[in-house]
Amino acid sequence: MYRLYDYPPSGNGYKVRLLLSQLAIPFDYIELDILKGETRTPEFLAKNPNGRIPLLELEPGNYLAESNAILFYLAQGTPLWPENTLARTQVLQWMFFEQYSHEPNIATPRFWLCHLPELNTYQEAALPYKQEQGYQALTVMDQHLANRDFFVQGQYTIADIALYAYTHVAHEGGFDLEQFSQVRRWLHRVASQPNYVPISQTEFAG
Amino acid sequence: MYRLYDYPPSGNGYKVRLLLSQLAIPFDYIELDILKGETRTPEFLAKNPNGRIPLLELEPGNYLAESNAILFYLAQGTPLWPENTLARTQVLQWMFFEQYSHEPNIATPRFWLCHLPELNTYQEAALPYKQEQGYQALTVMDQHLANRDFFVQGQYTIADIALYAYTHVAHEGGFDLEQFSQVRRWLHRVASQPNYVPISQTEFAG
Repeated sequence: MYRLYDYPPSGNGYKVRLLLSQLAIPFDYIELDILKGETRTPEFLAKNPNGRIPLLELEPGNYLAESNAILFYLAQGTPLWPENTLARTQVLQWMFFEQYSHEPNIATPRFWLCHLPELNTYQEAALPYKQEQGYQALTVMDQHLANRDFFVQGQYTIADIALYAYTHVAHEGGFDLEQFSQVRRWLHRVASQPNYVPISQTEFAG
Repeated sequence: MYRLYDYPPSGNGYKVRLLLSQLAIPFDYIELDILKGETRTPEFLAKNPNGRIPLLELEPGNYLAESNAILFYLAQGTPLWPENTLARTQVLQWMFFEQYSHEPNIATPRFWLCHLPELNTYQEAALPYKQEQGYQALTVMDQHLANRDFFVQGQYTIADIALYAYTHVAHEGGFDLEQFSQVRRWLHRVASQPNYVPISQTEFAG
């Protein structure tokens, strides 16, 4: 059985939990507390030298890191990874957008504001810059969704899961989604998919 | 013929130029100056709403953004995109590592130090943090390469191209590669591949 190393509030971890739930794949869940340094121990660094969750253990000693690469692996052979090359490329395009233009600007402020007791000098200086960039990412998404139900070719894919994870909790990073009506409608569409689970659910049938 | 919108010093653009050269695919080259705002004009934003290069025009009006997604598209059916699912996932794992843990911490300092007349308050505060994170990324790469010629299954893939682009110019971002002997040997291996072109080459047979 798959074993998922994860930190429950993590949106990156939630992407994997959500997809596993939607594909009805059982898994063992190993909870690590990143605030206590549990992803920087020698034991965990031997599993993922980059010291990050989520980490999926496929079989003993065989690990996959990077949430969006894990989504790619799990979605093979399912409708969440489209058939044709252009659609597949567009799925990856949005997933790279998510990791470069979205997650560092929306997830990171959420982590700082919700999980740290206070901000250091760098974080204080970076917060307004990241929030501006985060709003730019949300604007790009809202424009794209103006005439589309989902991000790629009208079909629910792992690009939607990747972007949903931190968008639906963006308010915890200080973002107001009021002006992004297309994004809000899309959030409801994603949350209406079969076998949806909320980010707060950390107990799994498996 | 493909048309590549690019900024010549960009490592993200260079990834695409290098792969096109190695696959001997001719292309038109449209040079934009990001310092003059040429990727933020209404005309360019109509092509890529995220306002970034590289952008590959497949045919008139059909655009692909995100350098690593473009690599994925171009490498289909070639040995640079492996055959089996686990190897493909590992290629993507390293490409997501590149965009999340490597590029923002190595390419961004390079851009700030080489291309901006002076740093603003945020950049001043962020630079040491990014350089520390950049060294962590290089350490992860060096460890991984200790007993490997290339990043995934001993084979030259688009993961190597993605990571090469900003690693081989990391010194321009203030990074010293002296302590990373495995990385330096791997840089030589990549530069020895057939049809290699340097980042500074901006004239193309096409």
